[in-house]
Amino acid sequence: MAGGDGDQSYTKNSLYQRAIIDAGKSLIQKSISDHLDPKKFPASKTFRIADLGCSVGPNTFISIDNILDVVKFKYLNINANEIPEFQVFFNDHTFNDFNTLFKSLPPNREYYASGVPGSFYTRLFPRASIHIVHSSYSLQWLSQVPIEITDPNSPAWNKGRIHYVGAGEEVINAYLRQHADDFSKFLDARAQEIVPGGLLLLILPARPNELPHSQDPFAKNHARLGACLMDLARKGLIDEEKVDSFNTPCYMASPHEFEQVIKQNGRFSIERMEGLPRAKASHIPNSPEDMTRGIRAVKEELIRQHFGDEILDEVFALYQEKLSMEVDLNPGTELNLFMLLQLKQDN
Amino acid sequence: MAGGDGDQSYTKNSLYQRAIIDAGKSLIQKSISDHLDPKKFPASKTFRIADLGCSVGPNTFISIDNILDVVKFKYLNINANEIPEFQVFFNDHTFNDFNTLFKSLPPNREYYASGVPGSFYTRLFPRASIHIVHSSYSLQWLSQVPIEITDPNSPAWNKGRIHYVGAGEEVINAYLRQHADDFSKFLDARAQEIVPGGLLLLILPARPNELPHSQDPFAKNHARLGACLMDLARKGLIDEEKVDSFNTPCYMASPHEFEQVIKQNGRFSIERMEGLPRAKASHIPNSPEDMTRGIRAVKEELIRQHFGDEILDEVFALYQEKLSMEVDLNPGTELNLFMLLQLKQDN
Repeated sequence: MAGGDGDQSYTKNSLYQRAIIDAGKSLIQKSISDHLDPKKFPASKTFRIADLGCSVGPNTFISIDNILDVVKFKYLNINANEIPEFQVFFNDHTFNDFNTLFKSLPPNREYYASGVPGSFYTRLFPRASIHIVHSSYSLQWLSQVPIEITDPNSPAWNKGRIHYVGAGEEVINAYLRQHADDFSKFLDARAQEIVPGGLLLLILPARPNELPHSQDPFAKNHARLGACLMDLARKGLIDEEKVDSFNTPCYMASPHEFEQVIKQNGRFSIERMEGLPRAKASHIPNSPEDMTRGIRAVKEELIRQHFGDEILDEVFALYQEKLSMEVDLNPGTELNLFMLLQLKQDN
Repeated sequence: MAGGDGDQSYTKNSLYQRAIIDAGKSLIQKSISDHLDPKKFPASKTFRIADLGCSVGPNTFISIDNILDVVKFKYLNINANEIPEFQVFFNDHTFNDFNTLFKSLPPNREYYASGVPGSFYTRLFPRASIHIVHSSYSLQWLSQVPIEITDPNSPAWNKGRIHYVGAGEEVINAYLRQHADDFSKFLDARAQEIVPGGLLLLILPARPNELPHSQDPFAKNHARLGACLMDLARKGLIDEEKVDSFNTPCYMASPHEFEQVIKQNGRFSIERMEGLPRAKASHIPNSPEDMTRGIRAVKEELIRQHFGDEILDEVFALYQEKLSMEVDLNPGTELNLFMLLQLKQDN
């Protein structure tokens, strides 16, 4: 994500992700209300919450407040005088801009804040130390590009594309395998870290069961970006080989694909799994310009690392141009998936 | 402290602070060995350590490793198969360069790391959640400049100086009052956060009992910097009023002064309080150039904030010039104080 708090930062261009949080708020709160039993966690002990893939705010603070409101309410319902102290861990990868995150922490927060750098596909916290893990719009990011699609000698070589839309079965299967490996590692790590009876709340862009990848609006964003890069290659501004070796480590899994990994993993029960109500159109960036700013805040760092600084403006100008030629910018077919998983007690 | 890891960063210019850590290592380890009772803290629970005023490394990682080595050893002595999981909290104020700190975390560390932004004169952690608090070379920094010394109408107005060396009783008393207020707040916060039986290990530059402030080598560093700024004012490069309104929020207390606050506060017992063995001369920056780089890494941010960027090179060139005219750069009269405090059980 783009750090800092300038005009092109994630901080200032994460309205879509914010709309998702708002759309998920009541599902998150109802889930905690129905499934968290505060009697299991005495108010004399610290209650710990983690947000994985927090980026630089302010969305992460809003998510945490949504969670805290209902947890406090549950404790107050038992005993008006006993609320635990809260400790919140904001996690993202080591190159996240934690400096900006820390400077923007809400001054009147009712929790002890800390930042945890590292991949959420590994262990981040001590055994049985976290009561609620939340992650919004992060788990679609894979731990790495599936290795086989970068090998020119592999049948899965992903030539002329940066993602799986329009690619053959081999490429899609490589992405699916990477997703399954990663998500399983994610569940293994969280199963160690979450206290028995603790909750795992996930929101992420997904693909409706049976919908072909080529029709998934999220995957189309990647395909569009790939087309821009190929245009620049054709103009001679970048090497086509550079595009061949660039791939987006991102996969939109279907609910069935998630279910399969969760069941195979066996540590969590699926308590809820459903699409979010559609975010209010008025809250979602609707113009090609705003949508491009949102995409740029998320993707420009990946592109910078591979292609350098120089082409960034051109790539996203082209992206905006392509967007403005599309008939319906918000077809409403995207699936934002909510999952509530609970750590099984016998673990 | 100067962030990043460039030539003038604290990361690359904290050799003196490193020498202090080495000089304190055996005291720290002996203290933990003698005073930590691992039977009180079952290995099945997380063992938590905090370093307050960690800055940007690598010194903080060395301190933590020194502590971890002996804690692990103590657990192994009870049961070779049971070592707790460790969680380490690196704390410094919100404007510390946590990004650099996180990128330089030792990859093979045996603990879960997290960063905690905020003043250690306030609460940073949940109740009874930390087993060992360590702080090296940080507590000499006050929470603020004593307010009365900045008021031209106060008898404590500190005109023409940036510190208390050479000032009247009123200025020194204002600094002493601020120190006592701050250190007492520090102890109050830690008394809440440390588990009963937990340890508080402090190392800081101090002043031998009875030694006048004017002869204390640490305070002299500040006086020298103040003289440089006054020289620049006389040359017309900065306003003298700017110097009048600038003061260093730093106080070198004596062991008696610390004792008095600790006793008045009442939450901790003093288990050890003594000077560190003198750091090996070969490990301490000895040339005027190296000493100036060390001072600059610590002080330049404060000066930049008040006077701007432009004068930095000139101030520290002058500082180095003044240093090179001194007869004995390492007179050996400085006191680096070690304290081991233990939270009283009846709290």
